[in-house]
Amino acid sequence: MTENNASESLELPLGFQTTGVACGVKGDSGVLDLSLFVSDRPAAAAGVFTQSKVCGAPVKVSRQRVPSESARAVVINSGNANACTGERGLEDAQQMTQLVASEVGCNADEVLVCSTGLIGHFLPMDAISSGIPAAHKQLSSSPEAYANAAKGMMTTDTFHKQVVRELELSGAPVRISGAAKGAAMIGPNMATMLAVIMTDASLTSADADQALRDAVNQSFNCISVEGHTSTSDTVLLLANGASGTEVLSGDDLAAFRYGVEEVAVDLAKAIIQDAEGADHFITVDVLGLRTREEAYAIAKTISDDALVKTAITGADPNWGRIVSCCGRTGVDLLETDITLQINGTTIYERGTPVEYDETVLSNQMRDNRDVSIALSFPFGDAQVRFWTSDLTKEYVRLNSEYTT
Amino acid sequence: MTENNASESLELPLGFQTTGVACGVKGDSGVLDLSLFVSDRPAAAAGVFTQSKVCGAPVKVSRQRVPSESARAVVINSGNANACTGERGLEDAQQMTQLVASEVGCNADEVLVCSTGLIGHFLPMDAISSGIPAAHKQLSSSPEAYANAAKGMMTTDTFHKQVVRELELSGAPVRISGAAKGAAMIGPNMATMLAVIMTDASLTSADADQALRDAVNQSFNCISVEGHTSTSDTVLLLANGASGTEVLSGDDLAAFRYGVEEVAVDLAKAIIQDAEGADHFITVDVLGLRTREEAYAIAKTISDDALVKTAITGADPNWGRIVSCCGRTGVDLLETDITLQINGTTIYERGTPVEYDETVLSNQMRDNRDVSIALSFPFGDAQVRFWTSDLTKEYVRLNSEYTT
Repeated sequence: MTENNASESLELPLGFQTTGVACGVKGDSGVLDLSLFVSDRPAAAAGVFTQSKVCGAPVKVSRQRVPSESARAVVINSGNANACTGERGLEDAQQMTQLVASEVGCNADEVLVCSTGLIGHFLPMDAISSGIPAAHKQLSSSPEAYANAAKGMMTTDTFHKQVVRELELSGAPVRISGAAKGAAMIGPNMATMLAVIMTDASLTSADADQALRDAVNQSFNCISVEGHTSTSDTVLLLANGASGTEVLSGDDLAAFRYGVEEVAVDLAKAIIQDAEGADHFITVDVLGLRTREEAYAIAKTISDDALVKTAITGADPNWGRIVSCCGRTGVDLLETDITLQINGTTIYERGTPVEYDETVLSNQMRDNRDVSIALSFPFGDAQVRFWTSDLTKEYVRLNSEYTT
Repeated sequence: MTENNASESLELPLGFQTTGVACGVKGDSGVLDLSLFVSDRPAAAAGVFTQSKVCGAPVKVSRQRVPSESARAVVINSGNANACTGERGLEDAQQMTQLVASEVGCNADEVLVCSTGLIGHFLPMDAISSGIPAAHKQLSSSPEAYANAAKGMMTTDTFHKQVVRELELSGAPVRISGAAKGAAMIGPNMATMLAVIMTDASLTSADADQALRDAVNQSFNCISVEGHTSTSDTVLLLANGASGTEVLSGDDLAAFRYGVEEVAVDLAKAIIQDAEGADHFITVDVLGLRTREEAYAIAKTISDDALVKTAITGADPNWGRIVSCCGRTGVDLLETDITLQINGTTIYERGTPVEYDETVLSNQMRDNRDVSIALSFPFGDAQVRFWTSDLTKEYVRLNSEYTT
């Protein structure tokens, strides 16, 4: 059972409590800007982080603390990325984990930290120092508290993003619950935006790490708004074993890994559903390549391309721009190797345009938010699915007029 | 002496005649759509072409004919790229060169061909077959005929692009004249948009080839509108020796090579001046890297980036987006290695934001079309200069509403 919306009724896994509070990072607006996720017992933890050489202080701190057999909490503030802030930024990030540790009663290195928002400003530590104890007092396992935690991570997001999946592993119910944020600067490179995935399954940290990396490669690494990898991208997985399952292995571990991937895919798609200014949600399938790297290069090039994105904004099935993208990836191919379908209609087949009713397809693209692009090649079995948004005047307005 | 505008008074080199006619590729609009460039004697010829695996038929034909000691003519049509058109497209491109050869009285393989415009439609060969003899009748060495040749190449360009440079080599006057087109799908990758550069200097084809490749690397390969390498990019250099100079060597060859580079740079900048929908002309200097490849990667990443481009549209000196671009290139660097100037004002120095008057700088960016971004690093002497445009609502409109 997967849900992927602004529902207030999604449940946390056993043994987790969360909350989101307004502590003042975003000024006196009353908007939630600090989220806390706490496990009542040590959780195996894994993390995947931005590959950008310019990364935020929280990334530097958290990266050193995973994988781990014993994480207790994640603290996240929005409104300020604490990136490009030098030594003081690093001290502030460490101080955040120390403050949480004091409240929870654990070591600072059992706390992970994320910040998201503007780059290059020092954190308002006064606000955060009073916000963390206040958040700790409000911790709860209720659906409302979980929704608030998802809201406290938001920047330009227009809705909060939560996904819950329930599995039965060896007869025991296991829950995987994830929350994510992201609206722009989306172009992960073996990394991703902020997301926290919690489970009450029992896992070794090594298995948690592998499950998370594999899931991220199929989800957050397969989305793009404008292809810009951010300084703050972080995905965390916490597995606390509170469901009472044995440490997972074999078929149970495989089923769990698939569950994590589904949660990650749904969160990644929710980020693209909320892409800044977007009118269309575009699924790009690339099939029949020799390697996943080839399929990925083609899917990412199409997904990042301003000309493809603007054509879709205009509801135009412009195969020339898509085929031209294939050519510029460096993948060894000829136009006669390319077959293209849009919304299931074949419009270009092995190098030749196909007759089809352009008005019908264009109207379909104009009237529906979802567009599917499928490219097939004759080389092999490797394939990738990618999700992207279109490029609209509203995206330009949001990213050029924000200062006025 | 360099000129770079819509002047009607720019001169061709000796021994060249050109023209542009309206033959009907663009319908009955009367807009010029066929250009002819003819040398009255065999010219050494070099060419640089798109690296896209999906390339137009004219690229396939012309690429096999250079470098050459004996080229006589270049024929270019606009309004139709003759790309992704299979065997028939290839035959049409060859036929175009055969028709020109018949008029000029040379072999078909002494004629080079380019097409630019929509991808995926067969050329209207009736129009072209009558257009080529009509163009041949109008050939002239006049400035008007040269301007018409530059106009006949245009697609969405709003002005035609010509550059002339005069040198004295061993006491003899030598002229280098170039014409180019380009307004979008600009993201050359060791290749470029359409340009024809003619000179009356005498060169071996090997030297012409090397001079052109070096010039292209400093000019057309250093521009971007949206980073999309097209199917049709072509730059040609024809050197017919009509100035009476000896075959160039030594210092004269070096001076000539520098002249070709200056012509290519000015044509490349003219393409960015005419970038679709752009409000700003942005010069990106990246200095102090270990290798040119590193500097190039940083300059191109910034120049292609939608978030940097929209910030400049909004007249915002948003250093966070620029610094974040540096981090995602894969180049080995830390934020403390980065110093950033915008329009000569240092706003970020070795990892720390610098105090400056943001209102003054922002007003300057709002009131002027030209913006300079300069990034310096402490690693070495390698540097690159790149030119790009901003991303506006008008760009989105042009590329999404063209079908309505």
